[in-house]
Amino acid sequence: MRDVAIIGIGQTPVGEHWQLGLRDLAADAAQAALQDAGIDSVESLIVANAFGATISSQSHLAPLVADFAGLRGVETFAVEAAEASGGAALRAGVMAVASGAVETALVLGVEKASDMIGAARVRARTVSLDADDEAVQGATLPALAALLMRRYMVEYGVELAAFEGFSINAHANGAKNPNAMYRNLIKPGAFGKAPMIADPVSLFDGAPDADGAAAVILTTAERAGDLVPQPVRIIGGGASSDTLALAERDDLLWLRAVERSTEQALQRAAVAREQINLVELTDTFTILAALSLEASGFAPRGEGWRLAQDGSIGLAGRLPISTFGGLKSRGNPVGATGVYQAVEAVLQLRGAGGANQVPNAQIAMIQSVGGLGSTAFTHILST
Amino acid sequence: MRDVAIIGIGQTPVGEHWQLGLRDLAADAAQAALQDAGIDSVESLIVANAFGATISSQSHLAPLVADFAGLRGVETFAVEAAEASGGAALRAGVMAVASGAVETALVLGVEKASDMIGAARVRARTVSLDADDEAVQGATLPALAALLMRRYMVEYGVELAAFEGFSINAHANGAKNPNAMYRNLIKPGAFGKAPMIADPVSLFDGAPDADGAAAVILTTAERAGDLVPQPVRIIGGGASSDTLALAERDDLLWLRAVERSTEQALQRAAVAREQINLVELTDTFTILAALSLEASGFAPRGEGWRLAQDGSIGLAGRLPISTFGGLKSRGNPVGATGVYQAVEAVLQLRGAGGANQVPNAQIAMIQSVGGLGSTAFTHILST
Repeated sequence: MRDVAIIGIGQTPVGEHWQLGLRDLAADAAQAALQDAGIDSVESLIVANAFGATISSQSHLAPLVADFAGLRGVETFAVEAAEASGGAALRAGVMAVASGAVETALVLGVEKASDMIGAARVRARTVSLDADDEAVQGATLPALAALLMRRYMVEYGVELAAFEGFSINAHANGAKNPNAMYRNLIKPGAFGKAPMIADPVSLFDGAPDADGAAAVILTTAERAGDLVPQPVRIIGGGASSDTLALAERDDLLWLRAVERSTEQALQRAAVAREQINLVELTDTFTILAALSLEASGFAPRGEGWRLAQDGSIGLAGRLPISTFGGLKSRGNPVGATGVYQAVEAVLQLRGAGGANQVPNAQIAMIQSVGGLGSTAFTHILST
Repeated sequence: MRDVAIIGIGQTPVGEHWQLGLRDLAADAAQAALQDAGIDSVESLIVANAFGATISSQSHLAPLVADFAGLRGVETFAVEAAEASGGAALRAGVMAVASGAVETALVLGVEKASDMIGAARVRARTVSLDADDEAVQGATLPALAALLMRRYMVEYGVELAAFEGFSINAHANGAKNPNAMYRNLIKPGAFGKAPMIADPVSLFDGAPDADGAAAVILTTAERAGDLVPQPVRIIGGGASSDTLALAERDDLLWLRAVERSTEQALQRAAVAREQINLVELTDTFTILAALSLEASGFAPRGEGWRLAQDGSIGLAGRLPISTFGGLKSRGNPVGATGVYQAVEAVLQLRGAGGANQVPNAQIAMIQSVGGLGSTAFTHILST
């Protein structure tokens, strides 16, 4: 297996881009990444997207993006795994380059949530739940997250306020990120008073769906050093799955796919948890952040929230997370989110994080989780 | 790059499976493939699907299929490239194994068209066209195919009857395939009298959308020989793209993506066209079959239809195509179709084609084309 590195990154601001379509956002991110890498073409384009077909009435996105990104004729296909689409596309891109099938691959995530609003968007988005067992009953992703959160609170005897640290941290970091969607701060105490979406998941808890596109360019680690001054190596990757429907899980409060993908990635990278300088995880909801920290082995079972409460997850903490705002503050351009994580990790490892820089960042972990743990893709990146 | 081989195949009958869902069809094909390979698990599952989100209100199919196929926990994601989804998933599966990331991969295509009928299905299916330039104008895939066919007839001075050989051949082969959707014969002359869908595309011209699932299991060529008596090697692969919207093409009658993907696959396989014993191509419409033969270099420009007229494409001909009925007679379970092609090619190369066997089949080409040539994936398989 050939070693793979990232030699270019690009991203659009995350938000509501009413005036731009999927193709426009994608082209902007792709062009930025090509310019960053100092190249003008690639051999393969892998597109991550979750809701183009249902929200924008557009599938077969891969050739459309290729065309508008100036890459007409390139080998291309789209990858989907709901919120983990970006992580899955990164995994597919790594395999494309590692195999020797191609020398360069552009992994591009794009999502456009603002083509629909209100109930129509909820319906279009709920296709990622189990249609027969969940969606048909009226379940939505926030409603299911609320069930998980309530169970966690009851089982571990934890109050709602225990989760506020995740949102406070995300917004503290996002406020300094010019590409973030919501750059306001959340003050201590405000979390508990926010309007409920699905009790106990509130407006200050769930991440906002958004428009955006992000891209990374991969090539072999061997070539990377000749092309750019600061390539970032992908030194380990892991992936796993769990049931789509929550009701099918033996243990609601343990994300097995997250656990397995993390174990694989760490093992392949030959890295210990203590060596990791920052984690971009999938904080679609604060409960998902807590459970991800636990299943990834960064906190004991039932105690993931403590890392948010004691300051460990801050930029200067022991284990910084959501360093550019995470899904909560940077925003959640669903299928693109995993690629945003990669872009942000590369900025950190280049020392180009600006106001969001984690001191001495050498090794980063990015973790893309689909739904409430149904798919998980974890990658370890290193200077 | 490690060499890759197919060690197991599975398929469901193609048709209208009103009583079965995506998960049921997928589980059937997966279990058949595992049984055929004599193994009970794989490391990776790659799911090909085109219209689950819009027709069945189900995306995030990968973990759902994994669960119902008895593979809970496996690494998994879905791949989409409209009608070429199956070919794209095969390409992703080959890269996964070739890279060394996994030792075994199950590539599974599944589609369920019968969850919608009539205008609702047309709307749900039309998301694969260019939403801004084509679908919004009321264009549908058959209508665009009709424009291509008319242009071909005018430019090359060809009559409608010139295309009938493709449908006659497909149904002659499909009639002998127990898994085919339409097993009736089309008699010479009947093609020209069939009811029009979009003049000149008639009911006997366009392939029927259908339900079905097919699966192939990949491993390294090195391991394959120890596991099964007749592994089939994937000796070359190629992929390319073209504009999504037909209106953006410089030359409407030349499928550049098909041309490039074929050239790449042949070159990598070190195989000449004369060595190929059969071709499974994407005959969504007869015009697409003619144009594919031309762009693939099997017929001069404007003369692809002659191979259908002179008997070359029959089972005993010089270049058999659609040997189990093709999309036209076996049916077109859209996202699964490229995987059906792989299953059928393996049957031929094993000499297990039964009444559909091509004599002395040693090398097969399978070609998965998305839309009207917007994406193309070509693989060369060998005994």
